[in-house]
Amino acid sequence: MIVVMQSGCAKEDVDHVVGLIRELGLTDHVIVGTDRTVVAAIGDKRGVDMSSLERSPMVDRIVPILAPYKVASREVKKEASVISLGNGSSVGGDKVAVIAGPCSVENETQLLAAATAVKAAGAIGLRGGAFKPRTNPYDFQGLGEAGLKLLAKARSETGLAIVTEVMSIDQVDLVAEYADVLQIGTRNMHNFNLLIAAGRTKKPVMLKRGWSATLQEFLLAAEYVMSEGNQDVILCERGIRTHESYVRNTLPLAIIPAIKRESHLPIVIDPSQGTGHAYMVPAMSRAAIAAGADGLLIEVHPDPEHAMTDGAQSITPKGFTELMGEARAIAAAVGRTI
Amino acid sequence: MIVVMQSGCAKEDVDHVVGLIRELGLTDHVIVGTDRTVVAAIGDKRGVDMSSLERSPMVDRIVPILAPYKVASREVKKEASVISLGNGSSVGGDKVAVIAGPCSVENETQLLAAATAVKAAGAIGLRGGAFKPRTNPYDFQGLGEAGLKLLAKARSETGLAIVTEVMSIDQVDLVAEYADVLQIGTRNMHNFNLLIAAGRTKKPVMLKRGWSATLQEFLLAAEYVMSEGNQDVILCERGIRTHESYVRNTLPLAIIPAIKRESHLPIVIDPSQGTGHAYMVPAMSRAAIAAGADGLLIEVHPDPEHAMTDGAQSITPKGFTELMGEARAIAAAVGRTI
Amino acid sequence: MIVVMQSGCAKEDVDHVVGLIRELGLTDHVIVGTDRTVVAAIGDKRGVDMSSLERSPMVDRIVPILAPYKVASREVKKEASVISLGNGSSVGGDKVAVIAGPCSVENETQLLAAATAVKAAGAIGLRGGAFKPRTNPYDFQGLGEAGLKLLAKARSETGLAIVTEVMSIDQVDLVAEYADVLQIGTRNMHNFNLLIAAGRTKKPVMLKRGWSATLQEFLLAAEYVMSEGNQDVILCERGIRTHESYVRNTLPLAIIPAIKRESHLPIVIDPSQGTGHAYMVPAMSRAAIAAGADGLLIEVHPDPEHAMTDGAQSITPKGFTELMGEARAIAAAVGRTI
Amino acid sequence: MIVVMQSGCAKEDVDHVVGLIRELGLTDHVIVGTDRTVVAAIGDKRGVDMSSLERSPMVDRIVPILAPYKVASREVKKEASVISLGNGSSVGGDKVAVIAGPCSVENETQLLAAATAVKAAGAIGLRGGAFKPRTNPYDFQGLGEAGLKLLAKARSETGLAIVTEVMSIDQVDLVAEYADVLQIGTRNMHNFNLLIAAGRTKKPVMLKRGWSATLQEFLLAAEYVMSEGNQDVILCERGIRTHESYVRNTLPLAIIPAIKRESHLPIVIDPSQGTGHAYMVPAMSRAAIAAGADGLLIEVHPDPEHAMTDGAQSITPKGFTELMGEARAIAAAVGRTI
Repeated sequence: MIVVMQSGCAKEDVDHVVGLIRELGLTDHVIVGTDRTVVAAIGDKRGVDMSSLERSPMVDRIVPILAPYKVASREVKKEASVISLGNGSSVGGDKVAVIAGPCSVENETQLLAAATAVKAAGAIGLRGGAFKPRTNPYDFQGLGEAGLKLLAKARSETGLAIVTEVMSIDQVDLVAEYADVLQIGTRNMHNFNLLIAAGRTKKPVMLKRGWSATLQEFLLAAEYVMSEGNQDVILCERGIRTHESYVRNTLPLAIIPAIKRESHLPIVIDPSQGTGHAYMVPAMSRAAIAAGADGLLIEVHPDPEHAMTDGAQSITPKGFTELMGEARAIAAAVGRTI
Repeated sequence: MIVVMQSGCAKEDVDHVVGLIRELGLTDHVIVGTDRTVVAAIGDKRGVDMSSLERSPMVDRIVPILAPYKVASREVKKEASVISLGNGSSVGGDKVAVIAGPCSVENETQLLAAATAVKAAGAIGLRGGAFKPRTNPYDFQGLGEAGLKLLAKARSETGLAIVTEVMSIDQVDLVAEYADVLQIGTRNMHNFNLLIAAGRTKKPVMLKRGWSATLQEFLLAAEYVMSEGNQDVILCERGIRTHESYVRNTLPLAIIPAIKRESHLPIVIDPSQGTGHAYMVPAMSRAAIAAGADGLLIEVHPDPEHAMTDGAQSITPKGFTELMGEARAIAAAVGRTI
Repeated sequence: MIVVMQSGCAKEDVDHVVGLIRELGLTDHVIVGTDRTVVAAIGDKRGVDMSSLERSPMVDRIVPILAPYKVASREVKKEASVISLGNGSSVGGDKVAVIAGPCSVENETQLLAAATAVKAAGAIGLRGGAFKPRTNPYDFQGLGEAGLKLLAKARSETGLAIVTEVMSIDQVDLVAEYADVLQIGTRNMHNFNLLIAAGRTKKPVMLKRGWSATLQEFLLAAEYVMSEGNQDVILCERGIRTHESYVRNTLPLAIIPAIKRESHLPIVIDPSQGTGHAYMVPAMSRAAIAAGADGLLIEVHPDPEHAMTDGAQSITPKGFTELMGEARAIAAAVGRTI
Repeated sequence: MIVVMQSGCAKEDVDHVVGLIRELGLTDHVIVGTDRTVVAAIGDKRGVDMSSLERSPMVDRIVPILAPYKVASREVKKEASVISLGNGSSVGGDKVAVIAGPCSVENETQLLAAATAVKAAGAIGLRGGAFKPRTNPYDFQGLGEAGLKLLAKARSETGLAIVTEVMSIDQVDLVAEYADVLQIGTRNMHNFNLLIAAGRTKKPVMLKRGWSATLQEFLLAAEYVMSEGNQDVILCERGIRTHESYVRNTLPLAIIPAIKRESHLPIVIDPSQGTGHAYMVPAMSRAAIAAGADGLLIEVHPDPEHAMTDGAQSITPKGFTELMGEARAIAAAVGRTI
């Protein structure tokens, strides 16, 4: 940590800061510059809120130096993590993992139509929500356990790994019983109790970035899961809130090289949530793979016009098959397969 | 809802949309413009996802007309709500309610020092976190129930209403036992299960806006609480995420007149979280009252330099007393008291 | 400047950075921390792009320490600047300056109606655009010099100082001939050639913040004007672009205490552009004064429904008179007058 | 345009709005819904500010239906535009155009080293700034005409088309004399006088999106150029301002399919400005081509550590050669060449 003093500070102001640094068990190092004095605090005190030093007299600001995450960081583990989904497939490594399916599980016909289609086109996982986080309390909230049972049936018919959302700590055991991967949605990335509960299961966790979370907060959310003993975290970018109105969310693909630099965890892109419009999904899927994404999470619905949720961003099985052809060509161009 | 067709659409495209609208039990109304045809769908189908119509052939976009919230809306209830805190004080109405105290409950000395000081200066409520949502899993997570007991002690000594955060559904009963107001933090505004659980208690809920939530999402979160039977929701604005870096959050005070127009619920401003810097808190407190806020939520710590959390934005008891003097002058200027 | 090295860097990496720092004529200071090594570069080299050091081997990032602005900064000039408008009034100091009038000069009747009304209510300046920056090339572009002549006429009839926008370097002399204050709009805050041209006139400049400019960029734009010899810069905040859709722009009033801390220049708030809705203007005007603003810039139109530009955010003369009454009460509460 | 009335409006409120619509020469169409009445105004009145109707009694809001741009729109011209650069190369069409070179022209050695290297690797254009828009008035402002002469020399030695920025109307003739493409930078996207001046030349214009401009504003800026008679506009996305801090700008590649849908103009991506970090440039270059971009604009410097501007995001000639190999593989995968 670096404490930047205000210009014109007195020696006693600097001494006061030095005293506080020593109180914390850190080593101080004062540098008197031309215009400003800065005090470096040496030592690792992650867990202590050093921003409070901003309230000391004549302190201008605090600059943290160390990244706050540990087990999620590339510094601690150099080789990329590969997360096994339990059905013989995995996320991370040379193969690009594609997980597809409807936003919500609506009924058996819809789900199996989607599942068999995405399986045939090359997906390794089936997505589909049984518990749905809905902005509006009057909207369809999902089928609950009945939806989980349909997902299990789809797995037994197709062999696809099941990825489905868990919204609340009291659903964790139930969802873990049926799912291969627990999805934690963007609205719950900062639901720390849920992160901890998911970290205590033995199921891989697909963690979606909060729509205004920083990269650091995203990796700290992963750290919550991992510090409970569950190392199997798959990161998922699904777009952020910005001023842009031609998309539902702005999809920042530069997070792919950033994550690769900062962390060993795999990163998957959701181009459906990440744009909000079906017509943009193929282009952004290709772009994600070209940028180095480890996988895609795509909304596919047999009849988007009648989808109960997210129809506007759902593609059809036919559209998905075309997309997979394009995706394979891009994967080959970057030395990967699907 | 208005369906805007693409230019050059054929009659069968319009007919197809009309068919879908009738399928939903709505009445259609086609308007052929100079360049574009639009189809209005008349009737109230809140709860049906009509955005799926965007996937119909030659549809350009969907424009919703009705606001999706009901019981939180000013249309349904014209007079402003006044929420009683149970200790004789209330939020809403002519008096501006000030709730102050430390970010975290750290120990009895700290808490009582803060409580007696804010009481003396005119606060009606004591804020203080026993369960702390922390971005970093290695940071101080709060004292838990021990903290709640200290808050209850502070209440019995000062008469202040206790406002404290509940982070998870399994904490709701416990926190409701000790607190006068359940606070739901910005990170949990979209934790719908928690909103529902809080809606099933009989305690007032202070609901903080998510840092990138829209106004509509904010009121729909209130609607989640209210539709469970608990009408006592106090809205709290605590700043949003933007590109600005001289503040920790950007505090958009225009939400005050917007809420007053859209809803009957009281709106409180948190200038501490809303800026991140103690030196800005007095100016933004004055501004909030001048703009018509029904209350303030302010972080006060007897020793900010040593605060375990949020020291940078905490003011001292002395600073708070000065702030209250200024706040009273502004309140008087807008015809209110504190 | 602080250079933060990557973890695991070798001694030669540090030596290389030290060499580059010395090449620039700066003094180096190496601090070996527990996990990271940082290199401080001491000395003032504003004008040299030191971010290029980020490309040196094993450098993680660069942290600037010094603020890049000089003559606009509070460090260089401690006392607040008061800018004289030439008609006996000024901006800065104890009096809150109110400048009001229509968005565009449309015709003599409209302009004089607005001017006499705002004068009667206590404004010291008349705003009104003769050259209009319009997003759409087919929209009304302003009356040009004919509009300037009408503004001059309004000044001679009312004594109000004229504040009007200059959009381009070839308009500077012409506008300076008629106006008392040259306004540089939000879209031109980064039009450096225009800033330089305005800096070579002897007229005060009202500089609006770019809608996504940082505080630092805002003050550096002022520095462009001032470094040409014109010290009379009035800063104006008019709202920023965010994800919020219930306003046209988000008005971040915390910039007022931030500017007061960083700079000696006066800061004026535009609640009309800053919200986009007439019904929000009174609340945000009161809030701005309560937060310490040195003035207000308000759109007033005798007939907003028929305004050629910005009608949605224009208030009527009657509304303005009421607003001024409220504003005076707030000003008195913070020890100022209008 | 659709006028949405407030709930509870009276018949005379609707009649008043109808009257205003007729005053504008438009046809009205009233739809009485279950909860709300809306009034559609039929006819094309681009150029009239109809948002002023928001100020009419009991009007809730105004919803525009027609896109405000014409000649830039896909509705008016169905086939994609191909812009010739004059040296036999072009932007748009099947070939992906790569334009590369240093941020600033610093001296002959630097420029020719960059030019020959990017030519050898397959670029068709040379970028390099002679006039530099710098946030800080004390920073290097470019070599001016001397820089233009060096660019002309580089063209005569390599055959590359010269793309260089024009910042101000008084530079247009000079820059047009030397350059093959006039670049208008992000800070000047709303400098309408400059857009008009560029529209009066016969040189292609590379128009960069303003860092917080909407898609509509971006196309309207193109419309400014085109409505002066110059149809040769190349759009360039270079990243937007968001809350993200791991990048200098957030690069929203979904603008590529959006532009392809809305406009016939080619779209080029700048991954250097669009991220701010050299290490991200290859990944985002690949992603841009995969998403359908018509070209790339890349900063290449022979010695980034010593670059006078933008070193942190500049890649070396060696890095550029590698990038071009990857880019060709992606282009082939989407059926294009470079």
